[in-house]
Amino acid sequence: MTETDIQLDHKGRLKHFLTTEGLSRQLLTDILDTAASFAEVGGRAVKKVPLLRGKTVINLFFEASTRTRTTFELAAKRLSADVLNLNISTSSTSKGESLQDTLHTLEAMHCDMFIVRHASSGAAHFIAGQVAPGISVINGGDGRNAHPTQALLDMYTIREHKRDFPGLRVAIVGDVAHSRVARSQIHALKTLGVEDLRIVGPKTLIPADITALGVRVFYDLEAGIENADVITMLRLQRERMRSALLPSEHEYFACYGLTEKKLKSARKDVIVMHPGPINRGVEIDTHVADGPHSVILQQVTHGIAIRMAVMAMIMGAATESH
Amino acid sequence: MTETDIQLDHKGRLKHFLTTEGLSRQLLTDILDTAASFAEVGGRAVKKVPLLRGKTVINLFFEASTRTRTTFELAAKRLSADVLNLNISTSSTSKGESLQDTLHTLEAMHCDMFIVRHASSGAAHFIAGQVAPGISVINGGDGRNAHPTQALLDMYTIREHKRDFPGLRVAIVGDVAHSRVARSQIHALKTLGVEDLRIVGPKTLIPADITALGVRVFYDLEAGIENADVITMLRLQRERMRSALLPSEHEYFACYGLTEKKLKSARKDVIVMHPGPINRGVEIDTHVADGPHSVILQQVTHGIAIRMAVMAMIMGAATESH
Amino acid sequence: MTETDIQLDHKGRLKHFLTTEGLSRQLLTDILDTAASFAEVGGRAVKKVPLLRGKTVINLFFEASTRTRTTFELAAKRLSADVLNLNISTSSTSKGESLQDTLHTLEAMHCDMFIVRHASSGAAHFIAGQVAPGISVINGGDGRNAHPTQALLDMYTIREHKRDFPGLRVAIVGDVAHSRVARSQIHALKTLGVEDLRIVGPKTLIPADITALGVRVFYDLEAGIENADVITMLRLQRERMRSALLPSEHEYFACYGLTEKKLKSARKDVIVMHPGPINRGVEIDTHVADGPHSVILQQVTHGIAIRMAVMAMIMGAATESH
Repeated sequence: MTETDIQLDHKGRLKHFLTTEGLSRQLLTDILDTAASFAEVGGRAVKKVPLLRGKTVINLFFEASTRTRTTFELAAKRLSADVLNLNISTSSTSKGESLQDTLHTLEAMHCDMFIVRHASSGAAHFIAGQVAPGISVINGGDGRNAHPTQALLDMYTIREHKRDFPGLRVAIVGDVAHSRVARSQIHALKTLGVEDLRIVGPKTLIPADITALGVRVFYDLEAGIENADVITMLRLQRERMRSALLPSEHEYFACYGLTEKKLKSARKDVIVMHPGPINRGVEIDTHVADGPHSVILQQVTHGIAIRMAVMAMIMGAATESH
Repeated sequence: MTETDIQLDHKGRLKHFLTTEGLSRQLLTDILDTAASFAEVGGRAVKKVPLLRGKTVINLFFEASTRTRTTFELAAKRLSADVLNLNISTSSTSKGESLQDTLHTLEAMHCDMFIVRHASSGAAHFIAGQVAPGISVINGGDGRNAHPTQALLDMYTIREHKRDFPGLRVAIVGDVAHSRVARSQIHALKTLGVEDLRIVGPKTLIPADITALGVRVFYDLEAGIENADVITMLRLQRERMRSALLPSEHEYFACYGLTEKKLKSARKDVIVMHPGPINRGVEIDTHVADGPHSVILQQVTHGIAIRMAVMAMIMGAATESH
Repeated sequence: MTETDIQLDHKGRLKHFLTTEGLSRQLLTDILDTAASFAEVGGRAVKKVPLLRGKTVINLFFEASTRTRTTFELAAKRLSADVLNLNISTSSTSKGESLQDTLHTLEAMHCDMFIVRHASSGAAHFIAGQVAPGISVINGGDGRNAHPTQALLDMYTIREHKRDFPGLRVAIVGDVAHSRVARSQIHALKTLGVEDLRIVGPKTLIPADITALGVRVFYDLEAGIENADVITMLRLQRERMRSALLPSEHEYFACYGLTEKKLKSARKDVIVMHPGPINRGVEIDTHVADGPHSVILQQVTHGIAIRMAVMAMIMGAATESH
């Protein structure tokens, strides 16, 4: 069974949300449309809808991430769910309990949804394959593999500014090799019809086989973002320097840091995205991050709406089938 | 004043829940019956009842325990209480504040209930003796002394499978000397009428005076569980090896690990219980833990219902007397 | 712009609550009156009002403080807000994200209120100057600068016992130099009309320029509290001993510890306050802390009402202006 199969129920509705890979254009569009209906909740005086009242959502974090945990917690609370944060690195797995026993124990407490964050690629998929039929898993980022809610909030942001996908030129810039965000973006962008999709970065950080995904590779930033409608910058993990894949932050910024000068190579109405947290002066210049092309904070806002949409769609399907 | 006296109000209703010792058969049965009425809440689409709305429940954990904390937090939230988690080892007691000052401060905030977990035997009782009249204490496990909600969820599980207690043969297997679970189980089982109650384990882990509680001691596993209706395995603390009370995990498993082969000595419809988290291959073989006799995950489910029942009964009595 | 200006909206209503300095007597009195209306909520069976339903309150703690965090969390939950605890020292600022980026990210999630605790003086003011127009900041203690909700709960407690402020003699005793509580108390007491305000402590712990605030300085405890109506003791930070500002706890207690004997110097109906957590036998004798003059636990109770009042007033003004 592929990741795609496991994500859908027998009616083709979202059961788990593990990856953007293999999901249909229709389903991705449905998520974006549903998110649009939740976007206005964030602007209300009472930011609360009762869709997940009496449901139990578990933030099952095997790797710390304040930002992702916070957005899922807020999204779940605004849907009126009960939320529990479990930081597994400091919990009873340290008493020698296996991951499967932890999962089955949480299931036995009648939890409805696990948000899984894990340092190992494939962890969310593995967990989705283990849980009882009534439980859904959302991937909050697993290793280098996928971060599908991040990719969807990026698609939402692009659609807000650019209407339709097929005619767009999109550039993904930075450490693609280690990026779950890039992988999830590529699958979503290709499915939504983007033809001119570019990967830009140093050779040491671009996987050799990436062109198989229908992208073009550029080792020069200005060439890669030429006439781009959308540029999405990836966060540079500082660990990469230490591991000798990169010379220095200074040199990286000189070649691949997005500055106002280099940005002139792109279209005048280009939008600049970044999943955050940003490293100012490393992958992005502070004037670009705070400048008129930046939509970085809009991405955060859309992230709440996307997460509400995914949880509500999954729970809606789950409630119907039970 | 004994622990029993302090647990009841002047009408004999539950005020604190510190130990199963000395509670009447009627009261234990009332808790099991109340839990039965909460058990179906876990299966509902909206797992929420408003009984503790506007009440403040504090998880006062002096010792880390993700599993126990999680079940109490879920139970309280499903009763609509506001829940606060205080991990006291990292809080203002480190600023030199005394336990009593911490308690009185929380009382002054109009908290209604403390769930206490502590490494020292007697801590929950001590705290119940200190708090203001309006506040109730539930023991979430204190040293080697008691873990009464665990024992009650075990009783609930037995009753689900075996109907009535008096005719049963029950074996408690493992490190009884260090086990608050075993102590709470023994008191509950005796009160509910179990006559043939057996303690099974190595001499170094069985207290010499345990027979005073009306149990029989076996040093041989197969003899101890012969024709048993119920076997409850205790978790082996790995620290015991280091302290030279035990030779090795391997040797312990050879003598006291519950395997399918040894289980043949019990009745064909025996149920196998364990408070979790389980050590597979130490006190229990993985085939038994996941096998047809195991009711270990049912115990977890019943734990939510029991905790909801105890909180609701205590709060019901408290509300009436105020 | 001064701290006072930034605290008020164009109609003179509370927008942020950063300091008691410069706030009008009318506004301080309004807060106390509003708190009085919330005080009875703590005594209700259902301690919950819907004023902040659907609002998101973030406990943004750059410095650990269980007590302050707990009272704000309880106050917000009793107002029906959704509350998120962010311990920033362990979060994504460790990933190199700047404070401003963290703030803007939280704003983009449509948070409504930040409770800020920080080791640096001026941090809450700085943050209030950074946040978007719709967001309010409450200072939960910043360095040596201010702790305004603590000062207001102290004023509430004094008013409960002493009716009116102008004729009172009030003594603040201890480490004034390092105390944000003392600073916030002095401003509030002077504004509310206290004329006879005394600062008592060793020379090393009294700032030289303190008399500019309209207080008198005493280096002798009994002289300083003579005929006092109100004594408020400050918590002694043990770090001060190590830094050689003080000889020893023993010697400090001999000179400045409040004992029953020394308390005879004050008025017979004196009330003794302390922000907690108290160091028994260091700044205060245990018989005084638990004696008939102590109102220390009442302060904690009033702290919930004051925090509910400040949050409700700010949110009421915010809702109206949007």
